[in-house]
Amino acid sequence: MGKLTVVGIGPGDYENMTVRADRALGACQVIVGYHVYVNLVKERYPDKEFLTTPMTKEADRCRMALDAARSGKDVAMVCSGDSGIYGMAGLLYELRGEAAEPEIQVVPGLTAACSGAALLGAPLTHDFAVVSLSDRLTPWEKIEARLAAAAVADLSVVLYNPASRGRPDYLQRACDILLRTLPADRPCGVARNIGREGESWTVMSLGQLRDFAADMFCTAFVGNSQTRIIGGKLVTPRGYRDV
Amino acid sequence: MGKLTVVGIGPGDYENMTVRADRALGACQVIVGYHVYVNLVKERYPDKEFLTTPMTKEADRCRMALDAARSGKDVAMVCSGDSGIYGMAGLLYELRGEAAEPEIQVVPGLTAACSGAALLGAPLTHDFAVVSLSDRLTPWEKIEARLAAAAVADLSVVLYNPASRGRPDYLQRACDILLRTLPADRPCGVARNIGREGESWTVMSLGQLRDFAADMFCTAFVGNSQTRIIGGKLVTPRGYRDV
Repeated sequence: MGKLTVVGIGPGDYENMTVRADRALGACQVIVGYHVYVNLVKERYPDKEFLTTPMTKEADRCRMALDAARSGKDVAMVCSGDSGIYGMAGLLYELRGEAAEPEIQVVPGLTAACSGAALLGAPLTHDFAVVSLSDRLTPWEKIEARLAAAAVADLSVVLYNPASRGRPDYLQRACDILLRTLPADRPCGVARNIGREGESWTVMSLGQLRDFAADMFCTAFVGNSQTRIIGGKLVTPRGYRDV
Repeated sequence: MGKLTVVGIGPGDYENMTVRADRALGACQVIVGYHVYVNLVKERYPDKEFLTTPMTKEADRCRMALDAARSGKDVAMVCSGDSGIYGMAGLLYELRGEAAEPEIQVVPGLTAACSGAALLGAPLTHDFAVVSLSDRLTPWEKIEARLAAAAVADLSVVLYNPASRGRPDYLQRACDILLRTLPADRPCGVARNIGREGESWTVMSLGQLRDFAADMFCTAFVGNSQTRIIGGKLVTPRGYRDV
């Protein structure tokens, strides 16, 4: 029986991987993942066996990884960002169930909340919520309720999966919900292609975010009532200055 | 004029640092930080100048870092976890104000939400809120409102700073607020000393979390309505199995 390591590779470049993730990929025999993420690491670990599946085949991908470990190989399953935050670690535990083997190790990685915030400035210095706008696996009403609650509670909000080809208007719909509570001039920002070719970031208002042409490579940030734009950067104070 | 890099070193061990954080600390001349965090990295980068301040002197620490950069040195400010999430990046931008110099670079790191979740299993596979229970800089009423909103919106919740010597009962108070909405058997967990000596994790119910003797080295996780304990691990499904 091999072991299975679920590796968060961060945004995608080598520099933003942890030492532990790098060592885990170096030590395994098989790398399993969504083909785009596998391609991000293939060059650095060329002497591995690679197993890939298309985008929406998450359960197939996890069964493939579990089967490879059961066949005696040490397997690394790669996830972009963190291995747990909207990642595959949960599904692997679900599919393994109460069996003790294969051993599962979760190696965390930089999620887009961390890596995108660092590009934009420091929007997450205070309490925040992370909400995915993808309704493939979650009823839209539940997403709406979470956005509304976050706005009322004055949490900064990080929006994952703000749009895709099949959902071009989801960011607009999310902003409309936030705008019921928050002012249109609330400072916001978008990070795109974090840690990859064409990396960019833009600071804007919530009103502008509503009409922003986001795509699946974007992560959006909505400030709290204290968030300001300082020197062109999106900054949420923690309150240290007043101490 | 030197440049200032704000480095999230992750939980504290070398393995959980990113390659970029390691390189930034290797390349700088001066390392500034809270003395506990500076001690975590001192051995690996011995040929640096070290500037430290005690725990609550955040503004002094940031001014020290800005002054060192203004004096022509390349400075790294170390933060535990991420450099932005409850970290010093925001205060550095605030104190620099609209000046273009010194240049500030934010290097993200693994925050306890990511690294603690990986220890416990996969509690953050779905939307979540991160809330600090420290009321040194935030009115307790605001913290309460955020906890209540997160519970009603069925967000998983990560509790930072669940207790300290001056606030031994804050976790209990926070759980009491959550228990107004959530059942006492809601799966929860605590990660302690993540990535450091004596690292440990415990899965428990919300009722047990209420009476857990947390300290400042703990991060607590409260599951959402779907979270289950599977094979001893805390797992929040994303819904992939049902697709």
